[in-house]
Amino acid sequence: MPSSEFRKFGHQLVDWVAEYLDHVEERPVLPAVQPGDIRRSLPASPPRNAEPMGQIIADIDRIIMPGITHWNHPRFHAYFNSTASGPGILAELLSAALNVNGMVWESSPAVTELEEVVLNWLRQMLGLPQEFWGMILDTASTSTLHGIAAAREAMEDLNIREEGMAGRREVPNLRIYISEFAHSSVEKAVITLGFGVNAIRKIPVDDRFCMRTADLEAAIAEDRKKGIRPFCVVATVGTTSCTSIDPVPVIADICECENLWLHVDAAYGGSAAIIPEMRHILDGCNRADSFVVNPHKWMFVPVDVSVLYTRKPDILRRAFSLVPEYLRTSHDNAVRNLMDYGVPLGRRFRALKLWFVLRYFGWNGLADRLREHIRLAKLFAGWIDAQPSFELLAPVHFGTVCFRAHPSGMNDEQTLNTLNEHLLHVLNGSREIFLSHTKLNGRYTIRIAIGHIKTQETHLRYTWEFIQRELKNLQA
Amino acid sequence: MPSSEFRKFGHQLVDWVAEYLDHVEERPVLPAVQPGDIRRSLPASPPRNAEPMGQIIADIDRIIMPGITHWNHPRFHAYFNSTASGPGILAELLSAALNVNGMVWESSPAVTELEEVVLNWLRQMLGLPQEFWGMILDTASTSTLHGIAAAREAMEDLNIREEGMAGRREVPNLRIYISEFAHSSVEKAVITLGFGVNAIRKIPVDDRFCMRTADLEAAIAEDRKKGIRPFCVVATVGTTSCTSIDPVPVIADICECENLWLHVDAAYGGSAAIIPEMRHILDGCNRADSFVVNPHKWMFVPVDVSVLYTRKPDILRRAFSLVPEYLRTSHDNAVRNLMDYGVPLGRRFRALKLWFVLRYFGWNGLADRLREHIRLAKLFAGWIDAQPSFELLAPVHFGTVCFRAHPSGMNDEQTLNTLNEHLLHVLNGSREIFLSHTKLNGRYTIRIAIGHIKTQETHLRYTWEFIQRELKNLQA
Repeated sequence: MPSSEFRKFGHQLVDWVAEYLDHVEERPVLPAVQPGDIRRSLPASPPRNAEPMGQIIADIDRIIMPGITHWNHPRFHAYFNSTASGPGILAELLSAALNVNGMVWESSPAVTELEEVVLNWLRQMLGLPQEFWGMILDTASTSTLHGIAAAREAMEDLNIREEGMAGRREVPNLRIYISEFAHSSVEKAVITLGFGVNAIRKIPVDDRFCMRTADLEAAIAEDRKKGIRPFCVVATVGTTSCTSIDPVPVIADICECENLWLHVDAAYGGSAAIIPEMRHILDGCNRADSFVVNPHKWMFVPVDVSVLYTRKPDILRRAFSLVPEYLRTSHDNAVRNLMDYGVPLGRRFRALKLWFVLRYFGWNGLADRLREHIRLAKLFAGWIDAQPSFELLAPVHFGTVCFRAHPSGMNDEQTLNTLNEHLLHVLNGSREIFLSHTKLNGRYTIRIAIGHIKTQETHLRYTWEFIQRELKNLQA
Repeated sequence: MPSSEFRKFGHQLVDWVAEYLDHVEERPVLPAVQPGDIRRSLPASPPRNAEPMGQIIADIDRIIMPGITHWNHPRFHAYFNSTASGPGILAELLSAALNVNGMVWESSPAVTELEEVVLNWLRQMLGLPQEFWGMILDTASTSTLHGIAAAREAMEDLNIREEGMAGRREVPNLRIYISEFAHSSVEKAVITLGFGVNAIRKIPVDDRFCMRTADLEAAIAEDRKKGIRPFCVVATVGTTSCTSIDPVPVIADICECENLWLHVDAAYGGSAAIIPEMRHILDGCNRADSFVVNPHKWMFVPVDVSVLYTRKPDILRRAFSLVPEYLRTSHDNAVRNLMDYGVPLGRRFRALKLWFVLRYFGWNGLADRLREHIRLAKLFAGWIDAQPSFELLAPVHFGTVCFRAHPSGMNDEQTLNTLNEHLLHVLNGSREIFLSHTKLNGRYTIRIAIGHIKTQETHLRYTWEFIQRELKNLQA
């Protein structure tokens, strides 16, 4: 593409993005399309000849935008939000243009070293100890898989890296412990690594949805008695369902005593520790063997930046290092080659967007914004509490509130579930707001996640009025 | 970031990128930094307060660029090149701005459906059969891991997903076959999945570095006799060392007869099949169970777009699907949710850059450019052949040439290895060109990969003159 054309369409797209972000609020959050609509608006066969760039860009508005769920919308409250902040978007432009691949230090030294530095910054912001070494992966699912792979490698005597797990009498049944509320990605990682679903033991939670450590201890003892070998515990700081926080200090004691690998999933909740008065949420995490936090969730960095920290990078390296001749370099003894610490060989320059965002907002600026989200969540929870037709279903620790409609006199759980499922359907069906749901103690639970940089109190008031109105309509 | 600021710095960065791409050739390919230089030029602690965007952008030139290896340089010939073409860069800007996450259809329908459509286009361009279903992953390493995970799941009777591989008498030793020249990522995937290095049997290659199928058959028979269970063969179209092509049709026969999963790694070579007269390189691949090709290698799409195709998406889904309550949607029966087919839950809008690139160049335009790269590679190989002090070390199929200096009279292999290692060191040390190396039959081999959209015959002539001159200097 000639540079004149690149400039022309680059400027045009920058303006398009600026317009889009300025006016996203005027769009419905959710698209109106049905399955297959977008597919049918596209040709079934590839274009034989070059098409003009102007036409391609016009098709963004014509074909793509009708099928976009607006994660940038201040009333997007589903899942956990993610914000594409300006500096993050601009960094991605740069990263795509440089198109470097940081598989080894030599293939672009700035990739490896900037990643090291910004992850060291983030570590300090989170109050994690100096021995934590970090690397960027795409998603928490991948980070958790890497953490558990290191846990497996830590069982040195089994030599699973070389000999595997199949067909070996000397390898016993292995066990990993997670809470009932751990994210599904933990289970997926365990399956992928070849342990099988049955290697997972789900520990019950208390009335605040936190892992019961007495049950954890009992489960470990029982398993050992049966000849099953425990090797890992996964604790969560900010579960996806309801943002509960497992008692990491006690779990860390148990892991130390039982010689188990401790992996902490703080993908969502971890970010809040950059607020000085919230640092306590990571109590005990300094003793984790591996730890994941996702700046692309609640730190205004566009997807994908998931960070895996470990106190034991040598074990992670042992699990994954494998250097063929064509990737050997003369610097190998003096540098860390990031390909040695994980599955993906290729590595985009993702540290750039984290660097831009941390500098543009500053630690204080980020902490202020997260603090405001938590204030809004508690404010919303207060509204729920004060309205007799609604009830909170879980404590509010971060920016997420779990609640349901519970009209007075309606006490049958099945009826309540149906009502709330219906209510959510109506709310999202309006396309004006987007909430998601979970189940807590068998109860259909509506979840509102507040974490977008644009979400303000006025948006929340609008949403709350809307929810109340729709409940009334349903009951009318 | 206020939109006025976004526009201002967005335009500035677009201009910066245009300038950079126009003048990248005037820079050395390789940076002059030593390990630690970039790290030391950055503050050790995170910024407390917001910094001006102008300063952050200024630091690109001041801090980052001195540590960049220029993958955009027309004389970057190491590894396999990757081109950040204009339309690909612009699509990344858009993808970062939309910041949608395509984990389920509902979370942004356009992500799922555009991915389906463009991968269907690419499938047609590659001449692969209609039943091939594709998904985008980050790198070939990840794609291969997913292919082999499906191969494991295909052994239904072992029920490894549920029961795992450890501590089970009924699970025998398992075996996967690859050629000596398969990419290291295959081995890494096997380790990660818990099979262990020992599950791999490397089949010797012939004098063209292709898997010897008679040896493959013998190995399978021998293993079966020993009670080892074969389950997968990995064939490569365009090995990383020397771009050799395994005899896929024969391997497919063997896999069919032996009931083994066939995974084809065409991460690099596959792209060439979009050239009509080169389509034969994928002969037999229509019978692969899984197949990987990387448009971010040789199709002018910025990293990361690796495509995994499979004829058996249901098996891939069985290996990875796991839907927690908080990710259930009302559309689940009517749509494919891409999270069900792999490890990562989050999914960037990567189809956008493939869509932009395929349309901007068109099928013909892409084929023309790849054809030219192959012409250049054969031209370069001709120069090597015609120069008595050099020799080719492998057949040239694509855009990569393997050669070494071999001055007349110098016949000791160790001396030749030392000479060529030294020669490569001097060449790259100049920072004027960047080549990498491999070993073929114990011989230190210099590799030149020609695949950047900007690389022209003049660049190649320059490089060839330079190599000859440096060899003379070394011998002087």
